[in-house]
Amino acid sequence: MFELLTTHDQARRGRLHLPHGTVETPVFQPCGTYGSVKGMTPLDLKAVGTQMLLGNTFHLMLRPGDEQIRDLGGLHKFMGWPGPILTDSGGFQVFSLGDLRKLNEHGVVFRSPVNGDKVELTPESSIQVQANLGSDVVMVLDECTAHPATHKQAEDSMQLSLRWAQRCRCAFDQDREASVNPGAKLFGIVQGGMYEDLRRVSLAGLQEVGFDGYAIGGLSVGESKEDMDRVMSALLPHMPPQQPRYLMGVGTPQDLVRGVSLGVDMFDCVMPTRNGRNGYVFSHSGVVKIRNAKHKHSQLPIDERCDCYTCQNFTRAYLHHLDRCGEMLGAMLMTHHNLHYYHNLMAQLREAIETGTFRTLARTLFNDWNNNNESV
Amino acid sequence: MFELLTTHDQARRGRLHLPHGTVETPVFQPCGTYGSVKGMTPLDLKAVGTQMLLGNTFHLMLRPGDEQIRDLGGLHKFMGWPGPILTDSGGFQVFSLGDLRKLNEHGVVFRSPVNGDKVELTPESSIQVQANLGSDVVMVLDECTAHPATHKQAEDSMQLSLRWAQRCRCAFDQDREASVNPGAKLFGIVQGGMYEDLRRVSLAGLQEVGFDGYAIGGLSVGESKEDMDRVMSALLPHMPPQQPRYLMGVGTPQDLVRGVSLGVDMFDCVMPTRNGRNGYVFSHSGVVKIRNAKHKHSQLPIDERCDCYTCQNFTRAYLHHLDRCGEMLGAMLMTHHNLHYYHNLMAQLREAIETGTFRTLARTLFNDWNNNNESV
Repeated sequence: MFELLTTHDQARRGRLHLPHGTVETPVFQPCGTYGSVKGMTPLDLKAVGTQMLLGNTFHLMLRPGDEQIRDLGGLHKFMGWPGPILTDSGGFQVFSLGDLRKLNEHGVVFRSPVNGDKVELTPESSIQVQANLGSDVVMVLDECTAHPATHKQAEDSMQLSLRWAQRCRCAFDQDREASVNPGAKLFGIVQGGMYEDLRRVSLAGLQEVGFDGYAIGGLSVGESKEDMDRVMSALLPHMPPQQPRYLMGVGTPQDLVRGVSLGVDMFDCVMPTRNGRNGYVFSHSGVVKIRNAKHKHSQLPIDERCDCYTCQNFTRAYLHHLDRCGEMLGAMLMTHHNLHYYHNLMAQLREAIETGTFRTLARTLFNDWNNNNESV
Repeated sequence: MFELLTTHDQARRGRLHLPHGTVETPVFQPCGTYGSVKGMTPLDLKAVGTQMLLGNTFHLMLRPGDEQIRDLGGLHKFMGWPGPILTDSGGFQVFSLGDLRKLNEHGVVFRSPVNGDKVELTPESSIQVQANLGSDVVMVLDECTAHPATHKQAEDSMQLSLRWAQRCRCAFDQDREASVNPGAKLFGIVQGGMYEDLRRVSLAGLQEVGFDGYAIGGLSVGESKEDMDRVMSALLPHMPPQQPRYLMGVGTPQDLVRGVSLGVDMFDCVMPTRNGRNGYVFSHSGVVKIRNAKHKHSQLPIDERCDCYTCQNFTRAYLHHLDRCGEMLGAMLMTHHNLHYYHNLMAQLREAIETGTFRTLARTLFNDWNNNNESV
């Protein structure tokens, strides 16, 4: 399923072959939480260069329900998105509920934030839900280790995730034919907190089970950039080169460049969409805060170097005005720009790996970001 | 500026020549309150067949301010809409403020609902604001007569509007060269409440001043459909045939067909956009309430006969889900459909007038609407 085309230092240029299409990597996946990337039609997504989406199991199993989506033909058909979809396991959101959930070896029980119903999520049920959604890439259910955690806490949590990963593998293999998307792939998730030794134990354990790809979970949870870099630098060289590597829930444009330079192939994050709705827009010289009064009269686009629909047609003054009036169009246009920015960044990185100019490009990007007036 | 191409009974097929383009009439104008038709980009508007927009003077003078829009090159440039724009006078919204405004011969003073500032609107200032916006069609400031009103109240109000219309004409002619759009046209507004005699006095008074077009104001203010029809039937045959006729703030699809059959050329209303955001969508068989639980599992589009982007790609079940989750995309897709529905209806009416089949079409439309299960 994964073709490694070329490398430049540790950066990798590849291609993911999935039932709903081929994805050029490294790739950024926008978040389509409830079966919709907020403010974007499938046509808009194509226009900004989206190749692959993330859908949230937790949200979709509660509303409208995975069985309903299955009965309507699966998530692709339901939301009118013909390209590949990856679904998370629901675990991350359940663990974010804090005291509202109860965890044991079997799985996790929580109260639905939608209607208060008691809901259970187990490795087996998470796989079942994702089979009903019909995603192209299914993620194992894991426990997202708390941060900070002692070595013992991180180890216990990682070991539980390993046992769950094994159960997910079994459930996935048994249910495959009943899935809406029988050609789906299953990814394992490396845990182990900030401990490099645990990360390597986790990876080895997952490899023993065997997965189509390996994700790095439990980062971007409040740790320092140095910790994130340290864990990634220690882990990535050990990951199997012939399989895709997915850094979950990350991140800023800077994080993407760092991740790619260390050998990551796939990313997802709410940042471009959520920030777009809140008037934080990305440019080659850093983040522009559109709510800042200085943009009220600005005839400039968000980014003069950008060729997206928003930058080609609208000024900062107009976006500032729309944001101030709470006009939906502001959120739409800024989301459009941010996703275009992210996808364009990834396209630049892909090209630079191909042409052997990745190091130069990364240096230029960081220089531009660091020399700006309104930093992230 | 107005070309009357053909008529069928009283229905008229025409063409409006305006500085920013030519408009085929009868035409429906979506409302772009704050310089944005909620949930629609200019590209989306073109896709659904929008020819001409309405901008709200009251809203835009408060946010971002008409002088700012002038300094940024006018409303067309500000919002990225290259086609014709009509602006109302701001009067209707000011009068909707009720006790928060004070009216005298000179004009009306009110407290800004945005920041509490005291703001004055006079015939002269309304024209000035619209000149700063640079609209193609400028409306006179009038007093929207309260409903119900006695004959005396309606007459006094109508006479005040007439005197204001005269002052608007003078201000418009004097300020023309300083306008962002020197080729703009000025429309008068017929008032007189539900009294046919007053309506005719108002029209005669306006014609004496002389305008590029004549609007019918003060309808769709809570009167019965019979009253609306009675006033329109009494007034329209007296309106000058060589000039465009604009029925303000109207209305339902049924109202549009009735209006066109009586000789109206132009309409505007928030209905397709506001209703779209609230899950009321139009179809050939009447209104579909997408929030109704019966649509939860429906694989049907809103309207099987519709070829809009929404109906070609999404089910009622998906729209129901988006609406339930408060997803922006639901409002966007339903607004898209509703505007397409309105513009397509107008296109059908235009064609039927040309081919002499208007009466048949109107009968078919009403039959379909009346035979549906979920009426308006």
